[in-house]
Amino acid sequence: MNSVFKSLEDCTIAIAGLGLMGGSLGLALRGQVRKVIGIARRAETVQQALAIGAIDAGHATLAEAAPQADIIVLATPVSVILAQIEEIRGLAGQGLLRDGAIVTDMGSTKAQICEALERLPASVQPVGAHPMCGKETSGLEVAEATLYYGAPFVLCPLPRTQPQAVALVTALAQAAGACPLQLDPTRHDRLAAAISHTPYLASLATFAAANDVAQRDAIAWRLAAGGFRSTTRLAGSDDQMMADILLSNRTAVLDQLDRLQGHLAHLASLLANGDDTRLRELAAAARAERSQFLETYGG
Amino acid sequence: MNSVFKSLEDCTIAIAGLGLMGGSLGLALRGQVRKVIGIARRAETVQQALAIGAIDAGHATLAEAAPQADIIVLATPVSVILAQIEEIRGLAGQGLLRDGAIVTDMGSTKAQICEALERLPASVQPVGAHPMCGKETSGLEVAEATLYYGAPFVLCPLPRTQPQAVALVTALAQAAGACPLQLDPTRHDRLAAAISHTPYLASLATFAAANDVAQRDAIAWRLAAGGFRSTTRLAGSDDQMMADILLSNRTAVLDQLDRLQGHLAHLASLLANGDDTRLRELAAAARAERSQFLETYGG
Repeated sequence: MNSVFKSLEDCTIAIAGLGLMGGSLGLALRGQVRKVIGIARRAETVQQALAIGAIDAGHATLAEAAPQADIIVLATPVSVILAQIEEIRGLAGQGLLRDGAIVTDMGSTKAQICEALERLPASVQPVGAHPMCGKETSGLEVAEATLYYGAPFVLCPLPRTQPQAVALVTALAQAAGACPLQLDPTRHDRLAAAISHTPYLASLATFAAANDVAQRDAIAWRLAAGGFRSTTRLAGSDDQMMADILLSNRTAVLDQLDRLQGHLAHLASLLANGDDTRLRELAAAARAERSQFLETYGG
Repeated sequence: MNSVFKSLEDCTIAIAGLGLMGGSLGLALRGQVRKVIGIARRAETVQQALAIGAIDAGHATLAEAAPQADIIVLATPVSVILAQIEEIRGLAGQGLLRDGAIVTDMGSTKAQICEALERLPASVQPVGAHPMCGKETSGLEVAEATLYYGAPFVLCPLPRTQPQAVALVTALAQAAGACPLQLDPTRHDRLAAAISHTPYLASLATFAAANDVAQRDAIAWRLAAGGFRSTTRLAGSDDQMMADILLSNRTAVLDQLDRLQGHLAHLASLLANGDDTRLRELAAAARAERSQFLETYGG
């Protein structure tokens, strides 16, 4: 049967990449779908995923797993996802994919990935996706079945994607406990730049600027309290994954960085001019708006 | 007996300001000193402090409490501390302070406060201080006896301060469970700008920049995950207290802001030029240095 006419429980899901995201997805889906196949280059990773019950079976390559899959989930870093979409294009060209097989991903940027998905043949159903949750720690060791509970799960179907394919990926997100919502890829990337990618850079720069001082006077670190740890928490994110993300969302991140730099320059000028009133107003407004955000969306 | 020749347990401590800091200090010290006198303008605050056992007695003004005190602790916002030091100068001029009475404070900046302390008469023993811990919440309601446990407690004695006065404030910090260390006020302010005041501004600007986007597209807030909440946590700090701090540490904060802006501009240029290698190196270096900091000083 054409993959997109199946229900989720009849689907075989192939997950490429068995790190935090892929491993957690496997843990969440197993038992709710026909079969979860894991794909990881290293045999030990496959063994470990089998051992913790994240997958039913494992393979070293997409070529081995893809022909069995109704839904292929690329849960690798953005640069690898882009390469894997090309690989899938090749496999589809050789007739190795099921008719109506869905290709989705968990990459943190969507415009570039959706552009690549456009190039897949018509027999493949592409649905870009990004579950928005995470930890600074990564790897299968920290995977957990509840990672996606309550998390926004952004879906970016292409104009040509069949509604049944979108419905199946929506069901997959829900089966993992997440809250699916559809967004245009460019809109996703602009929002992700604002609430994730640029905050990462702010966190990195704040740490680096403090580190400049601490290199000359190590007492700085002894004085650093919880607030500093919070502000610089994102600087502890997987650096190669983050670099991938930034480079694949360059325009939106540069735009948002510009906004951030504008606010900092404004704060600096108020401070330099001793503009007490305006500085207090800005600080009070941000605090009130943040508190409203936390009240509405949870703290 | 001259106040500086007493031991801490024989001292009467007057705490001006019964918020989070002053209230917690009272809770921590009561029973370990002769008497804790609280000073708060509002009678309800004094009543509440008595009710939770943070003070033994209370007054509405410094003028009423100061004559009984061996150690006066100013636990008010920086701008109020500066005014209270002037008030104490007046009281000392009228002979209303004990001989050798110690004046200390809990303000977040030290250079400006120590300058003001210099103007106190020779009969008064000034010791600037800053216990480095905090919460974003403020007020007596959230005061707790353990607030200072393990926190660095910076002491800035003046050149003329007698060693016995420094020893008494050191004993007070230890009695509260904190870890006293002596720093020059300018050095304290430079370090605090790096690990606290500038991170606050980075947090504020990151929130404001995201808010610009969210005002036009509210879905942004729905997508914001834990990392965004961490990075912008400090933007939820008491805004008037923070404005006070920034304005009284202007030079050091502007200097550190300049460093932060330099790092952001560098990151923006690497991203604009697609300098993959250098961007990855920087992200990896910051992550490694932060991880070393956490290993050494606790995460």
